[in-house]
Amino acid sequence: MTGLEKLQKDFESYFQHRHFPTAPASLYNPLEEFLSNSGKRIRPVLCLLGNSLYGEIDEHAFHLAAAIELFHNFTLVHDDIMDKAPLRRGKPTVHAIHGEPTALLGGDVMMVVAYDYIMRVPSQHLKKVLYLFNKTAKEVCEGQQLDMDFEKMQNVSLDEYMHMITLKTSVLLACSLQLGAILANASEDDQHHLYEFGKNLGIAFQIQDDYLDAFGDPAKFGKQVGGDIQSNKKTFLMIHALETANADQKKELLQLIADNPGDKVERVLNIFKSCKIDTWSNQLKEDYLDRSLQHLEKINIPSQQKTSLIELAYYLINRDK
Amino acid sequence: MTGLEKLQKDFESYFQHRHFPTAPASLYNPLEEFLSNSGKRIRPVLCLLGNSLYGEIDEHAFHLAAAIELFHNFTLVHDDIMDKAPLRRGKPTVHAIHGEPTALLGGDVMMVVAYDYIMRVPSQHLKKVLYLFNKTAKEVCEGQQLDMDFEKMQNVSLDEYMHMITLKTSVLLACSLQLGAILANASEDDQHHLYEFGKNLGIAFQIQDDYLDAFGDPAKFGKQVGGDIQSNKKTFLMIHALETANADQKKELLQLIADNPGDKVERVLNIFKSCKIDTWSNQLKEDYLDRSLQHLEKINIPSQQKTSLIELAYYLINRDK
Repeated sequence: MTGLEKLQKDFESYFQHRHFPTAPASLYNPLEEFLSNSGKRIRPVLCLLGNSLYGEIDEHAFHLAAAIELFHNFTLVHDDIMDKAPLRRGKPTVHAIHGEPTALLGGDVMMVVAYDYIMRVPSQHLKKVLYLFNKTAKEVCEGQQLDMDFEKMQNVSLDEYMHMITLKTSVLLACSLQLGAILANASEDDQHHLYEFGKNLGIAFQIQDDYLDAFGDPAKFGKQVGGDIQSNKKTFLMIHALETANADQKKELLQLIADNPGDKVERVLNIFKSCKIDTWSNQLKEDYLDRSLQHLEKINIPSQQKTSLIELAYYLINRDK
Repeated sequence: MTGLEKLQKDFESYFQHRHFPTAPASLYNPLEEFLSNSGKRIRPVLCLLGNSLYGEIDEHAFHLAAAIELFHNFTLVHDDIMDKAPLRRGKPTVHAIHGEPTALLGGDVMMVVAYDYIMRVPSQHLKKVLYLFNKTAKEVCEGQQLDMDFEKMQNVSLDEYMHMITLKTSVLLACSLQLGAILANASEDDQHHLYEFGKNLGIAFQIQDDYLDAFGDPAKFGKQVGGDIQSNKKTFLMIHALETANADQKKELLQLIADNPGDKVERVLNIFKSCKIDTWSNQLKEDYLDRSLQHLEKINIPSQQKTSLIELAYYLINRDK
């Protein structure tokens, strides 16, 4: 078992308890069910990892990891409502099963319970933890709003998209690592480089996510492949395709976005392939991985302690689901 | 100016700053707009009041008051989505103007900013404040879920309704008072009686709210009068009417609920009046006011300090909007 798998297993066994009261069951049972349909637990593992770099894992790192996992799941439940998504992790979404009002309210109470976990952190760390967690939570919401705004815009630049993705996805990965390090009393410098390692890795991760949504294997991916194309989402792939396609291809792409025909996904994918968007996105991902590893270099811990972080980086950007 | 009006004015001038960043404007401007469309500021005033019982108001009581007001407004924005309500405080709801996704996300970020305000409280009070705030936030969500569950149930007893209302409305009023008292280092006994004062007053307040929804003056009320009847909400009035109406009236009520005719509100109100539901609800309100005042008696402060609490109680249960 790798160091990462060990952390995943440790988190999973810690996290396997009830997180919510039993009543009203109509509110809380859908949430327990959703949380047990596990997902990859990347963010809580990052928190444990950030803590483990400095010695034995602190029990409070598990509480923070749980808070992060609940926060992340709260955003998934609400995002699925906003996106009207039918599936998540290969199963019907909370709102698809239980209705939008319960999914909305369930997300709300999941966020409150995330703060319950945060509250358990020792007092000397609490303000710093709350500050970083709240800052990140706001950024994640801002990222989601920009994402929705971009859907209505004709032109979104790669820079604008990068900013949105940083907020929507990367900062939570970065925050997870730093929260673990805060509990371990890591230096401000180390915290900064860990955060930047996570942020750049997060961008690489999202590039992979966009890639998988278009080019992933439906059997492994768990979501509808081509969902982003179907819903006219701006993605790294679409933005770059619009920038690099020839005049005919660009015209066809815009037409497909406007007309929404039944074979849209297939035809967009054909244009992506002929523009070599897959190769380009893999290169971009590598660039962000490099930036990430440069920050890793600067973290002031013995290099054998960094093995799990490197393992994580390659796990995240080479995953197929 | 009464003590209460002074507190309202103090809170209003403190609260008149921007609460959110400027970008993305599509997320934050609707929230600033909603918050400035003031409402009654009852809960933050309760927090200041709970603090003022023990001397000069602590600056941190204003931060907690702001947190409570943001939390309350977050619940309004989300409840309006769940209830598909077109109007709030006489104006179109956030989702009616800006769409459900922005209203949903805006509510989320408003809750995070509520925790930003809480975080500013001195460290020695932070855990106690967070514990009470989180406990209350969960209860408010549970109350909203029960409220929605009750809409689908044929029979809801007065006890079940009372439990729901306690969670959905009363505990936040109680919590607001206690939070102010926590900051003032009030005794546990005082905190308990203040909480119970607020909780029972909250029930009286909700009885008045149900009453106004049916018998209020549309020009003053700001919401659609008869909205609860229109949407088949269980209320104190409807539950008691179903319990006390004669066989013909009960049959008609159930028929009106099932058939939803255009003149439903008018005909339900006629049955309410002939069953003297208005008199009954006023008496019930007085009973809860009495319980509330019994707890007020037991708070260990000079009785002249209690004037504002008594003023508040009568203001809340005699209000017409």
